[in-house]
Amino acid sequence: MHIEDIGEFGLIERIARLVKIKDENVLLGIGDDAAAVKADSELLTLLTSDILIENVHFRLDFSTAYQLGYKAIISNISDIAAMAGLPRYGLISLGIKPGTEVGFIEDLYQGILAGAGEYKVEIVGGDTVQSLAGLVIAVALTGEVEPNLLRKRSGAQLGDSILVTGKLGASAAGLYLLLNPEKEVPQAEILKKVHLLPKARVQEARIAARLGATALEDISDGLASEIGHICEQSQVGAKIFSSQVPIAEGVAQVGQLSGRSALELALKGGEDYELVMIAPAASAHEIAREIFKETATSVTAVGEIIESSEEMVLVDEEGKATPLGKGYEHFRE
Amino acid sequence: MHIEDIGEFGLIERIARLVKIKDENVLLGIGDDAAAVKADSELLTLLTSDILIENVHFRLDFSTAYQLGYKAIISNISDIAAMAGLPRYGLISLGIKPGTEVGFIEDLYQGILAGAGEYKVEIVGGDTVQSLAGLVIAVALTGEVEPNLLRKRSGAQLGDSILVTGKLGASAAGLYLLLNPEKEVPQAEILKKVHLLPKARVQEARIAARLGATALEDISDGLASEIGHICEQSQVGAKIFSSQVPIAEGVAQVGQLSGRSALELALKGGEDYELVMIAPAASAHEIAREIFKETATSVTAVGEIIESSEEMVLVDEEGKATPLGKGYEHFRE
Repeated sequence: MHIEDIGEFGLIERIARLVKIKDENVLLGIGDDAAAVKADSELLTLLTSDILIENVHFRLDFSTAYQLGYKAIISNISDIAAMAGLPRYGLISLGIKPGTEVGFIEDLYQGILAGAGEYKVEIVGGDTVQSLAGLVIAVALTGEVEPNLLRKRSGAQLGDSILVTGKLGASAAGLYLLLNPEKEVPQAEILKKVHLLPKARVQEARIAARLGATALEDISDGLASEIGHICEQSQVGAKIFSSQVPIAEGVAQVGQLSGRSALELALKGGEDYELVMIAPAASAHEIAREIFKETATSVTAVGEIIESSEEMVLVDEEGKATPLGKGYEHFRE
Repeated sequence: MHIEDIGEFGLIERIARLVKIKDENVLLGIGDDAAAVKADSELLTLLTSDILIENVHFRLDFSTAYQLGYKAIISNISDIAAMAGLPRYGLISLGIKPGTEVGFIEDLYQGILAGAGEYKVEIVGGDTVQSLAGLVIAVALTGEVEPNLLRKRSGAQLGDSILVTGKLGASAAGLYLLLNPEKEVPQAEILKKVHLLPKARVQEARIAARLGATALEDISDGLASEIGHICEQSQVGAKIFSSQVPIAEGVAQVGQLSGRSALELALKGGEDYELVMIAPAASAHEIAREIFKETATSVTAVGEIIESSEEMVLVDEEGKATPLGKGYEHFRE
């Protein structure tokens, strides 16, 4: 059955049936001109949005509709995590190609709802329109954060430690394996899964903020790029010790196959949705310990905040410093 | 200068410079992972989003970037108006074609900001990405409404009057004239302007809700379609008197040129962004008078809410009733 068979309103009806609102603060969900929710007056409201476009952000030949939907909501949840917030309400706007199967859109929604459900996000509205030029997924997401936990990119202080959750490079390595299905490494399935069905670090960010982190950022464009944003907005520099960057298992082998070093995949790969956390050196150990205790997520110290005049440098095992480029940027190579 | 010359971050920097936040409730605007705003605990938060796609919703050959931006934010403001809310914070996500001029995107933003400014909306964030397949504009907008003013589509009661603000059909007529530039009518410029730079009826909706309107809807898909939504969700029927439907000047002439009746353009044209307001018959006169007094917007009674078993019918001057079809629907003809 194609979407033309049921029309826009038939599609909205099917989507509304998939979405079950559990949060009693949602007074009105899908099906009116706007959703209506009760906000908590003690908390700040966070607002973020992302737009994903076929053949730019994703390809339908190696992602299922479910995976696309899941990743679309997770990448927005990750943005709320980067503010130390709890994600709350999502709006999903879809541009859908003529001839699309209704089941495809339902699977996409199932993925969105699965990702949303894991982080207690309610999908309260959106828009469904025709797109003549490929699938478009636009997500807008609200969150809430205690005013004292809000963490901007501009908070990093001289001497602070730079911490990273989890291990990096897995998503970029997974993407390479998806693009080159003939290549094999033992960890292939895990790496692909990180790329297709990533996790967001909501609790980890809140623990870090509670324990004094000065700046937080989720790693969507690559560690180097994210630290670069923090440096720019905090007017500081950063030193990263190459030997300390936590690299996911199997990334080195994929690096060999693809002609890039494991470190490059970890620093510039992006889409790991891990957190980079800046914190006073005195708090770094406690943050790492508490995060591991409460969430079982590992935390690694990878560097420190230095004078802005020193910019952002990568220091190798022999102490040699080289300037660090950026991660992924749209419109540029 | 093309966007490739300045890159994604250069573009975001330019956009951030255009956007001047005046509202002190915005703690953090463009440039971080999410925006942060203070919510008023007495009010409900409204959430809406729309996605506009080149060659589906708009064409670049007769819309300027400024007009596109203006209309994109207005259509979302209109959705908040339909809930009797005040629009507050907008997120703009853009999918931009390679080779796009930086000035085009800046003009688009100037249009967005002009529309936002007229209704005191602050643009607090968004996303800018590459689109290989045409311009995509996704808008998400929050609003606020007093709990007692929130108006759903499901509130219409038997015997209620159906009121409409302003005059209808102008947008559809304007679109016809834009598509057929060789055709001329005396009101051409006004009709085209309604299509390209519509207004939203924020204050009008709030007055109606305050004075007892039971359901509100903005006319984006055509009067017939909007009344149809209300009937469906309120489980009622509706009778519309064809001679009472307010038709904008010049629509009849465009109707003649295009082979459609003025009434058809008014009922099914869409994108007028006027309001359809359902209200107890006893309040209808006061609502019309107050709206005109406070906003100078005319209000016309066009019909009444009837038993659901009678469905939605159009009654002509001789009293003959014919079933009424729907307005614009995506994925269908």
